[in-house]
Amino acid sequence: MYVNIEVMKLSNAVTSCCSGLLTGHLKNDDAIILAAMFRVLGEPARLQMLSLIAAQPNQEVCACELVEPLGLSQPTISHHLKVMYEAGLLEKERRGTWIYYRIVPKQLELLRKVLS
Amino acid sequence: MYVNIEVMKLSNAVTSCCSGLLTGHLKNDDAIILAAMFRVLGEPARLQMLSLIAAQPNQEVCACELVEPLGLSQPTISHHLKVMYEAGLLEKERRGTWIYYRIVPKQLELLRKVLS
Repeated sequence: MYVNIEVMKLSNAVTSCCSGLLTGHLKNDDAIILAAMFRVLGEPARLQMLSLIAAQPNQEVCACELVEPLGLSQPTISHHLKVMYEAGLLEKERRGTWIYYRIVPKQLELLRKVLS
Repeated sequence: MYVNIEVMKLSNAVTSCCSGLLTGHLKNDDAIILAAMFRVLGEPARLQMLSLIAAQPNQEVCACELVEPLGLSQPTISHHLKVMYEAGLLEKERRGTWIYYRIVPKQLELLRKVLS
């Protein structure tokens, strides 16, 4: 069972916001939250990670599994995973030494909605 | 008639890319292009501009019309509009002294597709 107990401000804020970008006046606070979310996606390595996670048979990865396909150091990968987790794009589960990450489809759905 | 004659690298690249983030392995080049697009959206003022443009009765604005609602200087607004134009998110038309901008819905549609 995956849990995402740590309540991250950004993640929660996005869940509670926003109307579509093109369907009403975007409030100041919502614009700040959404811009932060888009900045999280503004790193090629993070987009590749999301793509790689989605391509796994069980749709989860630990940082160790991304080192080879991405050609990045494990600390770098762990940092990107942490940023995406804090933005609510990933959920995580510790198993022994490793933390496994999964995509939170609802969060991507929210961003899609905002762009509509 | 709106035209967007200047062929911008980023804009064209996005038009020719990408499969959904979650439906296949994202190529390196596509990840770079998409991350750049998301970074363009990673500024609250730009999101508010898109929202304000969409809310206009004729769905277009010139920089002059954004100064008051956004409380930013005209050079700052013109800069943001230029960045979004170069990313293919806006098209523009010169009329006398002013340049008028409109949203390119196709480009937002592409980003929505990528997040699916």
